[in-house]
Amino acid sequence: MKLLRVDMTQLKTQFDPTPPVYERLGGRALIAKLLLEEVPPTCDALGPHNKLIFAPGLLAGANVTTAGRLSVGAKSPLTGGAKEANAGGTAGDTLPKLGIKAIVVEGRARQGEWYILRVKDDSAELLPANEWLGLGTYATADRLQEKFGADCSIISIGQAGEYLMTGASIASTGERDQRSNHAARGGLGAVMGSKGLKTIVVDKATGAIPVANAELFRTAAKRFAQELINDPKTGQKGSQHLYGTASIVATVNEIGSLPTRNFSTGNFELSANLRGEFMREVILKREGKVGTHCMPGCVIACRNSYVDESGKPIVGTLQFETIALVGSNLGLGNLDDVARLNYMCNDFGLDTIETGAALGVAIEAGLANPSTMLRARFGDIESIVGLLKQVGEGTPLGRVIGNGAVTTGRVLGIRRVPAVLGQAMPGYDPRSLKGNGVTYATSPQGADHTAGNAFGARNQVNPLAVQGQKELSLKLQIIAAMLDSTGLCLFARPPVLADPTLMADLINGLYGWNCTTQDLDRSYRDVLRAEIEFNRRAGITAADHRIPEYMREEPLAPHNVVFDVPDADLDAVFDTL
Amino acid sequence: MKLLRVDMTQLKTQFDPTPPVYERLGGRALIAKLLLEEVPPTCDALGPHNKLIFAPGLLAGANVTTAGRLSVGAKSPLTGGAKEANAGGTAGDTLPKLGIKAIVVEGRARQGEWYILRVKDDSAELLPANEWLGLGTYATADRLQEKFGADCSIISIGQAGEYLMTGASIASTGERDQRSNHAARGGLGAVMGSKGLKTIVVDKATGAIPVANAELFRTAAKRFAQELINDPKTGQKGSQHLYGTASIVATVNEIGSLPTRNFSTGNFELSANLRGEFMREVILKREGKVGTHCMPGCVIACRNSYVDESGKPIVGTLQFETIALVGSNLGLGNLDDVARLNYMCNDFGLDTIETGAALGVAIEAGLANPSTMLRARFGDIESIVGLLKQVGEGTPLGRVIGNGAVTTGRVLGIRRVPAVLGQAMPGYDPRSLKGNGVTYATSPQGADHTAGNAFGARNQVNPLAVQGQKELSLKLQIIAAMLDSTGLCLFARPPVLADPTLMADLINGLYGWNCTTQDLDRSYRDVLRAEIEFNRRAGITAADHRIPEYMREEPLAPHNVVFDVPDADLDAVFDTL
Repeated sequence: MKLLRVDMTQLKTQFDPTPPVYERLGGRALIAKLLLEEVPPTCDALGPHNKLIFAPGLLAGANVTTAGRLSVGAKSPLTGGAKEANAGGTAGDTLPKLGIKAIVVEGRARQGEWYILRVKDDSAELLPANEWLGLGTYATADRLQEKFGADCSIISIGQAGEYLMTGASIASTGERDQRSNHAARGGLGAVMGSKGLKTIVVDKATGAIPVANAELFRTAAKRFAQELINDPKTGQKGSQHLYGTASIVATVNEIGSLPTRNFSTGNFELSANLRGEFMREVILKREGKVGTHCMPGCVIACRNSYVDESGKPIVGTLQFETIALVGSNLGLGNLDDVARLNYMCNDFGLDTIETGAALGVAIEAGLANPSTMLRARFGDIESIVGLLKQVGEGTPLGRVIGNGAVTTGRVLGIRRVPAVLGQAMPGYDPRSLKGNGVTYATSPQGADHTAGNAFGARNQVNPLAVQGQKELSLKLQIIAAMLDSTGLCLFARPPVLADPTLMADLINGLYGWNCTTQDLDRSYRDVLRAEIEFNRRAGITAADHRIPEYMREEPLAPHNVVFDVPDADLDAVFDTL
Repeated sequence: MKLLRVDMTQLKTQFDPTPPVYERLGGRALIAKLLLEEVPPTCDALGPHNKLIFAPGLLAGANVTTAGRLSVGAKSPLTGGAKEANAGGTAGDTLPKLGIKAIVVEGRARQGEWYILRVKDDSAELLPANEWLGLGTYATADRLQEKFGADCSIISIGQAGEYLMTGASIASTGERDQRSNHAARGGLGAVMGSKGLKTIVVDKATGAIPVANAELFRTAAKRFAQELINDPKTGQKGSQHLYGTASIVATVNEIGSLPTRNFSTGNFELSANLRGEFMREVILKREGKVGTHCMPGCVIACRNSYVDESGKPIVGTLQFETIALVGSNLGLGNLDDVARLNYMCNDFGLDTIETGAALGVAIEAGLANPSTMLRARFGDIESIVGLLKQVGEGTPLGRVIGNGAVTTGRVLGIRRVPAVLGQAMPGYDPRSLKGNGVTYATSPQGADHTAGNAFGARNQVNPLAVQGQKELSLKLQIIAAMLDSTGLCLFARPPVLADPTLMADLINGLYGWNCTTQDLDRSYRDVLRAEIEFNRRAGITAADHRIPEYMREEPLAPHNVVFDVPDADLDAVFDTL
């Protein structure tokens, strides 16, 4: 397996042997190590010294179900620290089959020059991209597949990435006409934009990757898939298959943690209209699709394609975080509205979490929309569309919002900004789900549920209690590091948690290594260690790892609770790492 | 001497005895100590836990020439650290005569409620201010003097402070109709706005402050004034008296350090039109004023009132930093243009340094002005006025610019942002005046020439050499701490540097203390120590104390030099503090 080095300054590409230090690492683990080894931690995240890394997980490309997520990473222009975000699609599966362990994009093209990176078997070239500039991610994918073939994977940024907005995502296509898998968090789209890279086109691979111990590997892979099929949550009758991530809307609302109107309450009176169960009904009635997948061979198949009343696809897949952040958080209790905003975010290449939070802050600011002279209001979809449109147009207000919640709050003079380490919170208010608060506060990734989501553990640790949260968060953060480094979907946790030897068998079978479960556990912890060390060198301190002041003082309905996990607990999370 | 505590949450005022820990401190020293003792370093700078402090220097109120500067301080919303900025005017002289050592504004009024603080002998009250809202600092001062008396000192914020812009300043009036003394740096106007405090009205004092050892004090004060009068620079034939701070325009340009077109070169081809010598000619020809003063009894009298062709005052005093930042830095080689922008900044209550830097970044971004649909261009005054106007109007673009250079760069996707610790650089490019680069990088105040300006030492330490800069910067930073804590003007340095016993005599004479020059030296160093400690607790690290990456890599004409003082030197500046 090789590293594809792409030098945007010299406009050169090169396949290098993978240095031993990176050999046993994939996805987030490889990114963390590469940042620590090769990127000056204090560098300008949008400057030439940052590196943008595309790295499939360790288990990618070998037909392990749910293991094809593509990790993307860099020093984040949003958090200032190490960043990894991952998404489904086909590229994660394809790159290893092309013999590519990771693509490392370095340097920076001359200002105003834009490129496509075309990757095929053993070859990679940079082509001028100026004719695709200004296109959203949907049109970019359409046009490039038209040109290079319908079975290419297209990785691209939209207008947000071109404008170097720190809320910009990176989109990846999936099988057939599937779009909108976004490595969304941390402004990685801006890093791609800063390099002058509009898209990466990856040809479909024809080969397969070698398997060192076929029997061990295939037995484990089969068992893994079967256990997911048998699992009451991920199986064919399970809520995750049936309703996707949106299955949790009702419960998050019930526990009083659903971000509503810029995180001003944890209960949304219209949440019933946003529930996954209701969404499924609507989609089926309108003859849209449910139960599809974002990665080839996924047995969970939680994806949907949300359609309008005439059955025309609006966006897919509509997910919980988006429903929370551009739905209840904006006072919108209508899935059609949520889908419309989701489509716009996807097309512009924007993180729906960051953008939803920024819109919530902007609405709180009560700022007149300068184009329409209307005030944006919670619950008023047209006024919100008016704001969001401006992001794609690059108006000053659009550029503010596209830069995320913290910038929006600063510019508009609002201190109720739900963010940690510069990054907006996802769909769980930390005051009533304190375990997530601990993760938001302490994760080297900034506020991020995928870094360690305590929602699933609410029956083990009382979400309103202080006790037990720091231990829970650490455990979850280690598990997240495992998933993000092997390429696994978050939904695929149960089998690998129930029996750690399963993961060892998969990895040892694939690579012929002799990792013990202890070795693996250490490697997951090492991911966090590397990120924490990178961040330390970047100047991030305990003072940055705090829930915003207002959430520690302003009680959240309906439980009337503040975030009260003591700083000492936050600072102690990694003591036993 | 008492502390006037103003609780904006409870809307109460109270005169407290000065606690012993603050007794021997004034101005910046008192602010640094008070922040360290009373303000949680990680607090939201625009939240209720920050405190806004108005503190005259130790020598204020006793008719020591040039010693009446009013220090204002808080945790800065711009730098995130300890902040002190000071300005001339009459309040610095008046407060001690009213027995007030400092005004400490705490808490936060309810949103939408605004107040005036009225301060008289032994009384202070909060009055509703809503009728003055939305006024610039000129109209605010005029209306309030109309209401409360022409000899009141008016301390106020303009629209920028009301919008909580982090580039907002605090304006103080001087004698008669003098306006526009600004404690400009670090966004202190936003802190005042966050408290709900629009203005402070201070009645003229009738009494005098007690002097412990009249003979010692008067001898020293007289000697101090006489030495300033005799000094070739500050005396009646000196360049500082004749041309004010603008006397250095020509030399800063000659050494290749004059910020030009967003710090892209250090030489401005039209700089001759911006020189102090030329300015004086213009003002005298138009029958404007030169040689006036910003503080009662100042013997240097460097102030001017810049007038238009008909002799009508535009702005006063036109100073070097403003000329550099809204002049050459915006490609403007016309003092009338500079004066116009200066007036607008003063009226909105904006730091001209921060705003000039932000405008430079905005122009580099080539952003279309959404109101006029014109692009702002370097050297095109009307397009620049069009941008700046928006700050007062509170349009989205105006709010971006009003929040300073770093926010403007982030929103508009520009990485050439001349700032350290979030604060814009003043009128000396650090690449060709490396001593100032060391001060910008290392000062706990962020990029700030008043924290230790190496320009005056250019004949002792080669501005282009690395050698000697770190020692020079430390020495200058200690001197700055002395000036800022005693209330002295920067121009008044020579006599107190030539003979440190002069300062000891002034202080011991006034207060009856027995401070040695060593005690005083220690106390100046303690100011820096307190600020550094506050910042450390706030989460600021060495990584924040760096000159921007592009200045370390992009050579500056005409010397084609980068900023190359090694990080190790920067980190070692305070080793011998």
